[in-house]
Amino acid sequence: MTQAPDSPRVRLYVKHPLGPGQPVVLAQDQAHYLFNVMRLGVGNNVALFNGTDGAWRAVVRDAGRRGGTLECRDQCAPQRDPPDLWLLFAPVKKARTDFIVEKATELGAARIIPVQTRFTSAERVRTDRLQAHAVEAAEQCGATFVPEVADLARLDRLLAGWDSGSNGARRILWADESPDAPGVAFSSLAPGPWAVLIGPEGGFAGAERAKLRALPFVTPLALGPRILRADTAAVAALTLWQAHLGDWA
Amino acid sequence: MTQAPDSPRVRLYVKHPLGPGQPVVLAQDQAHYLFNVMRLGVGNNVALFNGTDGAWRAVVRDAGRRGGTLECRDQCAPQRDPPDLWLLFAPVKKARTDFIVEKATELGAARIIPVQTRFTSAERVRTDRLQAHAVEAAEQCGATFVPEVADLARLDRLLAGWDSGSNGARRILWADESPDAPGVAFSSLAPGPWAVLIGPEGGFAGAERAKLRALPFVTPLALGPRILRADTAAVAALTLWQAHLGDWA
Repeated sequence: MTQAPDSPRVRLYVKHPLGPGQPVVLAQDQAHYLFNVMRLGVGNNVALFNGTDGAWRAVVRDAGRRGGTLECRDQCAPQRDPPDLWLLFAPVKKARTDFIVEKATELGAARIIPVQTRFTSAERVRTDRLQAHAVEAAEQCGATFVPEVADLARLDRLLAGWDSGSNGARRILWADESPDAPGVAFSSLAPGPWAVLIGPEGGFAGAERAKLRALPFVTPLALGPRILRADTAAVAALTLWQAHLGDWA
Repeated sequence: MTQAPDSPRVRLYVKHPLGPGQPVVLAQDQAHYLFNVMRLGVGNNVALFNGTDGAWRAVVRDAGRRGGTLECRDQCAPQRDPPDLWLLFAPVKKARTDFIVEKATELGAARIIPVQTRFTSAERVRTDRLQAHAVEAAEQCGATFVPEVADLARLDRLLAGWDSGSNGARRILWADESPDAPGVAFSSLAPGPWAVLIGPEGGFAGAERAKLRALPFVTPLALGPRILRADTAAVAALTLWQAHLGDWA
């Protein structure tokens, strides 16, 4: 919630290489944000990051109505990638879906995959809008990494191809809302690549539940005696994973 | 995210004793919710809870435009109080403050106290509106308990009278956003009454920080290498406490 004293107060994600003396040409929306919303002008500092090169202090060289140019000075933070943790979640109502993406970015998920389950109402999601939320959250939370938001995938197909696909040995921590879900002993879980799986507000269907229970790479996780909304469950499960297996330890 | 199969689909918090055969007269807003919004009618079931008597199945006896009467049948869930965990948080923007109250209720906080810190922008909070959010969250999450939302209190005064007040041996788990905050070994924390303390978006002032560090009943808690928003920090800290010292274990 605080910043280093001499770090620029505005952070901006750019799709651009960053390095000493590197000029960065701004798109119209970026210029609008910096010069109209944040009231920056020529000579002011901005922190830039692109997801791979850390954060760079840049100075405004040229500020126009429809564009502008920054010039990189020096790296003010090293690149810091999150642990290899994915979030698989069933999209819920718009505001809560946006919220899940924002929180997953803050909490350090490396990849966000909306999944369609039996009880998911969404037929499609606006991936570009969710990706923009992830960028904004990364700008806000001082991150140098932006998780990719993938297109909506069907959970059954994703699980069917899980082992043989590019997921390799990735395990799934499944937020299981059934009353008899076991508490999980995090100390018994192996480190390595993981994905947290959160269901929709209506929960998982019986067949999905049976499938998940039978899969050897899935570990159920109980999240207390009260029913959590999907967005709360996402934050809680990511928090527990980060605190025990991730970069909070 | 799921309900027991034969439990009523609508849950309603009432300030009314509950017991077998007990009639419950509805206020206008409750009648509107049940009969217009949820489209219930005479003979339909509702689950009622009042924060002390568990949840009761009740049947609609009389449904009018401006009121109505329910009759309690049998208890469908025992009273379940959360652990003795308070949330102290500095109010932030309206939507995020509402969100914090909703999430604290879901996660099982027993009391919610908005606190005014040096960098808190809010001079006052609408306690009644926040209390209504806590009620709604309890209705949604299947809880039988509603945390009390207290009036805004000055953090410095609260801390000054902490030991000698009604807090007794209550300890404070302080979400410390400074980069050198220590990770906390939850296994070393004593069970008993606790309060989680979350600062405002601007963080705590230096003097507040120094004060908190010096207090023997305060334990700092680091929440990872990224900067969390206040609402995220609240969910994360409550989750970790519940998983280790609360009723999730």
